[in-house]
Amino acid sequence: MRQSQLLSPTLRQAPADAEAASHQLLMRAGYIRPLAAGVYSYLPMGWKVLRHIERIVREEMDRAGAQELHLPAMLPAELWKESGRYDVYGPELIRLHDRHGREFALGPTHEEAVTALIRDEVKSYKRVPLTVYQIQTKYRDERRPRFGLLRCREFVMKDAYSFDIDAAGLDASYRSMFEAYHRIMQRLGLCYRAVEADAGAMGGEGATHEFTALADVGEDTVVTCTECGYAANLERAEAGRGASTASDAVGNGVDGDAQAARVETDENLAEDQTSKLADAQAYKLASAIAQAERFLTPDMKTIKDLVAGLKLDETAFIKTLIYIADGETVAVLVRGDHEVNEIKVKNALGADVIELADEETVVQVTGAPTGFAGPIGLKQKVKLLVDYAVAALSEGIAGANEEDYHVKHVVPGRDFAIDAAGDYRNVMEGESCPYCGGGRLQFHRGIEVGHVFKLGTKYSAALGATVLDPNGREHPLLMGCYGIGVSRLMAAIVEQHHDERGLIWPQAIAPFQVHVIPVAVKDEKQMQAAEQLYAELQRAGVSVLLDDRDERVGVKLADADLFGIPLRIVCGKSVADGMVEWKERASSEVKLVAIGECLEKVRQWEQLSLCSPVW
Amino acid sequence: MRQSQLLSPTLRQAPADAEAASHQLLMRAGYIRPLAAGVYSYLPMGWKVLRHIERIVREEMDRAGAQELHLPAMLPAELWKESGRYDVYGPELIRLHDRHGREFALGPTHEEAVTALIRDEVKSYKRVPLTVYQIQTKYRDERRPRFGLLRCREFVMKDAYSFDIDAAGLDASYRSMFEAYHRIMQRLGLCYRAVEADAGAMGGEGATHEFTALADVGEDTVVTCTECGYAANLERAEAGRGASTASDAVGNGVDGDAQAARVETDENLAEDQTSKLADAQAYKLASAIAQAERFLTPDMKTIKDLVAGLKLDETAFIKTLIYIADGETVAVLVRGDHEVNEIKVKNALGADVIELADEETVVQVTGAPTGFAGPIGLKQKVKLLVDYAVAALSEGIAGANEEDYHVKHVVPGRDFAIDAAGDYRNVMEGESCPYCGGGRLQFHRGIEVGHVFKLGTKYSAALGATVLDPNGREHPLLMGCYGIGVSRLMAAIVEQHHDERGLIWPQAIAPFQVHVIPVAVKDEKQMQAAEQLYAELQRAGVSVLLDDRDERVGVKLADADLFGIPLRIVCGKSVADGMVEWKERASSEVKLVAIGECLEKVRQWEQLSLCSPVW
Repeated sequence: MRQSQLLSPTLRQAPADAEAASHQLLMRAGYIRPLAAGVYSYLPMGWKVLRHIERIVREEMDRAGAQELHLPAMLPAELWKESGRYDVYGPELIRLHDRHGREFALGPTHEEAVTALIRDEVKSYKRVPLTVYQIQTKYRDERRPRFGLLRCREFVMKDAYSFDIDAAGLDASYRSMFEAYHRIMQRLGLCYRAVEADAGAMGGEGATHEFTALADVGEDTVVTCTECGYAANLERAEAGRGASTASDAVGNGVDGDAQAARVETDENLAEDQTSKLADAQAYKLASAIAQAERFLTPDMKTIKDLVAGLKLDETAFIKTLIYIADGETVAVLVRGDHEVNEIKVKNALGADVIELADEETVVQVTGAPTGFAGPIGLKQKVKLLVDYAVAALSEGIAGANEEDYHVKHVVPGRDFAIDAAGDYRNVMEGESCPYCGGGRLQFHRGIEVGHVFKLGTKYSAALGATVLDPNGREHPLLMGCYGIGVSRLMAAIVEQHHDERGLIWPQAIAPFQVHVIPVAVKDEKQMQAAEQLYAELQRAGVSVLLDDRDERVGVKLADADLFGIPLRIVCGKSVADGMVEWKERASSEVKLVAIGECLEKVRQWEQLSLCSPVW
Repeated sequence: MRQSQLLSPTLRQAPADAEAASHQLLMRAGYIRPLAAGVYSYLPMGWKVLRHIERIVREEMDRAGAQELHLPAMLPAELWKESGRYDVYGPELIRLHDRHGREFALGPTHEEAVTALIRDEVKSYKRVPLTVYQIQTKYRDERRPRFGLLRCREFVMKDAYSFDIDAAGLDASYRSMFEAYHRIMQRLGLCYRAVEADAGAMGGEGATHEFTALADVGEDTVVTCTECGYAANLERAEAGRGASTASDAVGNGVDGDAQAARVETDENLAEDQTSKLADAQAYKLASAIAQAERFLTPDMKTIKDLVAGLKLDETAFIKTLIYIADGETVAVLVRGDHEVNEIKVKNALGADVIELADEETVVQVTGAPTGFAGPIGLKQKVKLLVDYAVAALSEGIAGANEEDYHVKHVVPGRDFAIDAAGDYRNVMEGESCPYCGGGRLQFHRGIEVGHVFKLGTKYSAALGATVLDPNGREHPLLMGCYGIGVSRLMAAIVEQHHDERGLIWPQAIAPFQVHVIPVAVKDEKQMQAAEQLYAELQRAGVSVLLDDRDERVGVKLADADLFGIPLRIVCGKSVADGMVEWKERASSEVKLVAIGECLEKVRQWEQLSLCSPVW
């Protein structure tokens, strides 16, 4: 392609609202343009890259035995009502009416549509295992679309769905997709981790993994261990019940032994013979602590206020948060330095929706404004979800359910009943690894680019998708779903492959492989060499962009850096000596290469990259 | 691919609502399934065919120098308000609101979006000519979706847009697309015609062509000449003013000379010296006709009623239809045997929207209920659009603008003023060709599968898309738009390529090239031969489907006929003699071929089809 004809409008400045590097550079290089918030046009080079990513995803899906199909984006609301998601999905689901007033949703995902299809078309165990996929434009009305292609309202996704008759089949289908995802990420040259993720109501070991590309701009937090291979996202990462809280407590100067003793009262040991002994010890310890006592804490509504006002560490406090889970009001207690993990709470309750209670509810339940809730003396009886770290406290300071008052010497189990002790908090960086125990947890920012998930019978049961086994017995299909954010991947790759001058495309997805640049198009020799190379490479099937524009060399080289085509061949003064300049975008080295050897060298270079270690 | 694993659910019966052969067969063969009216899922084989069509379209677009990009489907309403189409488009445009209440439309076409993009990104004559295209899912809320993929609400379209600085450039861009469309249709093996179509306000010779696939189920009427190459759609086909009306008149027993004389009063001759003479002659003739006279016609509201009641030919009557064009009421007069061509009326008035007046307006304008309108004695002064064939009548019978009354001896020009004589009617089969005069017009049913259109400055002017010429002067861009119904093409191809047993895919777009069928999978020799062929063909890069199902041979062959894979190789009893049966789907001939020669013969067969005369 000749650059003079290519629609590739560059910008000197990134738009003011572009925070992420990928957003800035894809805009500046003329790969994308916004049409509305979170709604983008792909210009020719952007679309080429996207199609290359699609191709790699498609190849690996096909290789894994998945069959490509294509479901509509206009989905009848009835389908979503059958699964129960129509009301639950909220404003992210784009809804519309047709001319007859019938309700539709624009597909944000296709579990319902694919389950209904398979329900109607697949009746026998002979037709499974079956995995189908599609690469399609999806719609989610994000509350805050941002970061360019990272969080869009209209975006390209690959979604796959597997159908099996039993758990072993689902395991195999899941593993096959899991491996295909690894191959895809590796072929795309991504630095990524497959991390354990929250499986919601499914639960179970290895029921879901996110594929997360490491990137500072990422909105996800990945937790890894410094010693073992443990990797989970923050929503999922398990808080170690013993070591970590104990060590935190030690760090905070509280009696370690007492702490350790209480820790043994946790669920896992409850049935154990030792638990009664532990309880007795704990009781003795608790009875040594002074009675709970109300005291004045004017204007101290937050942990920060209390820490400042009382000159105590955050760990001395018990935070009580009032939530509404599927309509039921509950209280969640975490230590002052911890954050509630709403996903964990939601899962523990088996709830669909959870949200912080509004002020009115807080006043109703506690009798006080927000900031003074506590487990003792609540006006309404609500379930208390007590985080392990709170259950492990010998004593703490909690809200008094009265404005400007807190209570000290609060002993969990003595002063309030622990309805459900559990892991309800986010882990903290530096904690002990819950798996190996020896390592410490590290946090990383990442972009979720893929997600594999065992759905089980959630949708097949709701929509009645069953098959008959060889004995004529009906079985609900076990499903898995597997998503890849194709357009998001494009941005994630840029986040990892760029410098201050522009994009640096991995060869596998570059819009062109070679950028041929004559320094001065009016110099006959240079232009002739460039045209010759251009023709030669094209004949050889190499995708090549020729910068035939009559522009200053500075402009041309700056645009080339911005575009990020992996190999640049500059035809400048050395053409007089039969040489051209060879520069790979990812390197700063410039070599002189004889014009006659260029094609052969390009072929070698292509081979080299095709055999890159990641693949 | 092994058929036992392929999601390809066949149906014995087509659904009751499937009228078109393509709809029936694509459903029966398991290529598509409906999710809602006019909203389809593509199953694996259907999607393969669609992607093959896409590939051919893409290759020819690229070859023509068009650049692929991708615009959003979610289009801000503001854009459509800028072009003025938001209000005009009507209920076919699917509208929605985002979570912030902002209005969007789901793109039925992308003139606005692409014009806005080019307006913002292309400023100089150096960047044109430029043609961009996309292959995308489009949305139109059809009043009556039907015929499966032929008229959908969600469908796949290729739309291209060209931008030029002058008319010569637009001509060249248009020609380039016109030729690419011919190549596409030929590669798809379609029987089609490029027909002149209505250019709306653009007008002009060759400003728009439709590519119409001949098919009985088609909703378009193509008019061709028995002698010359003239081809136009019915909306566009010009009514010959002289010969055809005259000959019709002769056929109806009216004085041919008188008729011919009046014909000469038409617009083209108005400035001519001869016209005064003709007028004088016409006057003389008219004055010989009796005075116009009201007479009772009880319950004769339609031409059919009048023909039956008065025992006269349809040609003896003048039909008067009341229309509302952009808010203005007009009357259109056509001969009793003719139909109003609303597109012609709309174009003549330069109107955006035209519709038949409601009963209330008819009563207001005529003083009578529908069925008795006429040009004499209207209650309101409205513009009279008089078709040439009416203007050419020596006399006729028209409505009296009074219930149950008509007027006879009505002489156009004598009894009512001809505000605008013109071509306002559909041509009729058998009329003389307006171009060569010698041939007769023939009607054919067809499916519009492509449309090329010179838009001129319609959108660039509305959205302010201009470029600077070398002298720094601003020019609005001249645009062309070029659409292909990709999913509709799939159905159109089936309409032309099927028999009573199933689909017959042209090789270029078949889901698989070869269908290998072992007659009895439990026969070791047959199965071994089939497996060997399957492996060998796959290694050679031939796409092949192996029917490894343990089914009766009758079921397998019936499914094979239904699927329509172009080449079938059956491994039956003759395998014992080292032979297999070779049968092309499009032929009834069965040959025996040595197993060892199969691969070579398949290669030859592939080459043969690649060099087919249509390409």
